Amino acid sequence: MAQGQFLRNLIIETPSKPGNLGKVTMAIGQLNGDIGDIQTIKVGTLSTIREIALQCNDQKHLAEIVVAIENLKEGIKVQAVTDDVLQMHEGGKIHMKATHEIRSLADLRRVYTPGVASVCKTIQEDPEQANYFTGISNTVAIVTDGTAILGLGNIGPVAGMPVMEGKAVLFDQFVGISGIPILLDTSDPDEVVETIKHIHQGFGAILLEDIGSPHCFEIEERLKKELPIPVMHDDQHGTAVVALAATLTACKHVGVELTNASVGQIGLGAAGLAISRMFMAYGVAEMKGTDPNPHAKEMLAEYGGTVVETMEEIMETCDVVIATTGVANLIKPEMIRKGQIILALSNPNAEITPEIALEAGAAYAADGRLVNNVLGFPGIFRGALNANAKSITYPMLIAAALAIVDSTKRDDLVPHPLDPNVHINVALAVEKVVYEEQDQEI
Amino acid sequence: MAQGQFLRNLIIETPSKPGNLGKVTMAIGQLNGDIGDIQTIKVGTLSTIREIALQCNDQKHLAEIVVAIENLKEGIKVQAVTDDVLQMHEGGKIHMKATHEIRSLADLRRVYTPGVASVCKTIQEDPEQANYFTGISNTVAIVTDGTAILGLGNIGPVAGMPVMEGKAVLFDQFVGISGIPILLDTSDPDEVVETIKHIHQGFGAILLEDIGSPHCFEIEERLKKELPIPVMHDDQHGTAVVALAATLTACKHVGVELTNASVGQIGLGAAGLAISRMFMAYGVAEMKGTDPNPHAKEMLAEYGGTVVETMEEIMETCDVVIATTGVANLIKPEMIRKGQIILALSNPNAEITPEIALEAGAAYAADGRLVNNVLGFPGIFRGALNANAKSITYPMLIAAALAIVDSTKRDDLVPHPLDPNVHINVALAVEKVVYEEQDQEI
Repeated sequence: MAQGQFLRNLIIETPSKPGNLGKVTMAIGQLNGDIGDIQTIKVGTLSTIREIALQCNDQKHLAEIVVAIENLKEGIKVQAVTDDVLQMHEGGKIHMKATHEIRSLADLRRVYTPGVASVCKTIQEDPEQANYFTGISNTVAIVTDGTAILGLGNIGPVAGMPVMEGKAVLFDQFVGISGIPILLDTSDPDEVVETIKHIHQGFGAILLEDIGSPHCFEIEERLKKELPIPVMHDDQHGTAVVALAATLTACKHVGVELTNASVGQIGLGAAGLAISRMFMAYGVAEMKGTDPNPHAKEMLAEYGGTVVETMEEIMETCDVVIATTGVANLIKPEMIRKGQIILALSNPNAEITPEIALEAGAAYAADGRLVNNVLGFPGIFRGALNANAKSITYPMLIAAALAIVDSTKRDDLVPHPLDPNVHINVALAVEKVVYEEQDQEI
Repeated sequence: MAQGQFLRNLIIETPSKPGNLGKVTMAIGQLNGDIGDIQTIKVGTLSTIREIALQCNDQKHLAEIVVAIENLKEGIKVQAVTDDVLQMHEGGKIHMKATHEIRSLADLRRVYTPGVASVCKTIQEDPEQANYFTGISNTVAIVTDGTAILGLGNIGPVAGMPVMEGKAVLFDQFVGISGIPILLDTSDPDEVVETIKHIHQGFGAILLEDIGSPHCFEIEERLKKELPIPVMHDDQHGTAVVALAATLTACKHVGVELTNASVGQIGLGAAGLAISRMFMAYGVAEMKGTDPNPHAKEMLAEYGGTVVETMEEIMETCDVVIATTGVANLIKPEMIRKGQIILALSNPNAEITPEIALEAGAAYAADGRLVNNVLGFPGIFRGALNANAKSITYPMLIAAALAIVDSTKRDDLVPHPLDPNVHINVALAVEKVVYEEQDQEI
């Protein structure tokens, strides 16, 4: 398990005297444990019980922290270690619910047979009516083949299901979309495209998720061409939208005009290539990129980017540098040029930490913890579905990025993901672009 | 629209004097309108407003009824005609909901990244854990190609979506299963089987629904062979379970032992063949069947049934007759033999109405309004999922039928579909059989 991905709760009992919580949190901090929420469970005359949310590296790290707390003695005890994460996953995180309760035979006859027949007939006579009398136009398939689940790699679609369910949770809570995980047992582009085509009529849009590179490119391109509904690979374009938004905000903070800046992308995987394309679509004049993989560089050139052979050249020549390599500490402090904007986005361990980058002279630096695609995809799909869009286009994605910038509080890099305004603003911005595009077609 | 499938509500205003409701209901009844629930909306000093649920044949029939009520005069008015059915379908009948609300960043980090990674790892290391930490094992795909939607025929999967959503509603409300409609744009058995195989890992079981004959047979057989999870075509086996249950109860009412009876099936479509197979699996010694289609008769013979050339022969020789032809009034009163049990199951118009059949000498008669597969499939799938069954077997289906019989109130033919005990009893009975079968394997 990579750094900081191991989440547990410590149930700690201390004598009810000031100073004891300080001792506990100091002990955790000294061992580099990351403390989240602290809740007081019980305040007794003699002792107080608190639940401390802890983020650490792994089981071993956790054990060290527990021992350190126990060693404080003086009545301080770890009563239990609980796993909220696993608990919240018990039975899965999503359920297909009825929107109306059936309370009588009359209800049953309306929702099911015989009443339902008249609704079927209505749709048969005018297929557009399915937009109103079924949930199809509010439903998004969350499709994965399990080949690139988070940073865990090719662990298969079933092991990736918690991520897909998580996306469905966010769809539901943030924008009221019904998200349906679809787990594919194949990564062959022909089979994936055929399968999705055969089931697409039940969905208003398709979100491709955690599909590995390079087959993700062919799959997305072909589905976009062949399906009459929006298709988006979130790891490419969702990530690119949030990266563009964060970069624009960073530029604003340091007074740089992005379109005039020289931008360099280190790492041309699915996310890196998509970020490069997004920046070019936004109007960045010179978009440089590099990757050890020759095919990735060819693709960048095809998309109109400038291929650079080494990351050193990017570090030396670019005003804005974005890294998505998955390689921790790839960028050395001595490579940083004064005034650069550095977004080192690999999770959970960045190419360079913001602290080190700033110390080395960067004007602005951030890592991938904040640049979370949860800021993008819910509103993008909400807007596309609202406007009955046939596809996801660059103008829609750029509008989404600008809406994220507009929703960002002063001094922040990105908005708080639980701020409902973000998702509403993104949806409205995307919707508006679709209507403008539709008007131009007429 | 066939008889009685047109559901509307009449909003009726009458002077607040006794006798007026009687006049209105008489007027409706004289025109063969079928009255459901009557709700009093408002009782005023001068006038009373009621909502009368009306089941009629079509728009024209409705208009005649409205005119007849208006013609009552004396202050009786039809204030509005509303369509509850369409209203209950607005926006669709189902939605994928999160089971936990995200109220804080800490929640977000548990449900989504980074916390979710540890759950993915847990499943990667031990795939069985997906049963506990995802919703897969509680999720059933409701798969249709739209070729045999209710009695409406091949209207396509999108027009059939209201039926699929209805099934998902029943799954949710009756047994807590998460039902996911999958709309196929192909009826080719190879393509259907390939498509379902490619997406099956996201589901604990597959319900095939409203898939036409004969391709439904090949599709179900192949999926049952090739998938490690339960697969059931509801229009075949779900219907057959309820038909067996109703027949057993009818036999009980008239003192007939089904296994000793001569049973005849008129109509060997998907439902008729499945009913024949179910009765043979139950132990009926002689199962006769007939159909105009030679291939259907061949299939019955293959399954071990006795092919009969005419329905007249069945009517003359069988103690129990089941008809699933879709042909209204096919069975003439003079064909009925004294003491016969007649289940004329075609919806919405039976082969012979129970009244006429009883008058002609039948010992027991019922039509398809009561023999609704809503009594079967929810509990069957609940039981199969509870027991982690690998397939649906005849012993499971027969146990389901017997549980329905046991759940039937004295003098009734079948249980009330909103009686939660039915679904619990069916689930427990099915589950028990699976455990017994698993024990035998060990």
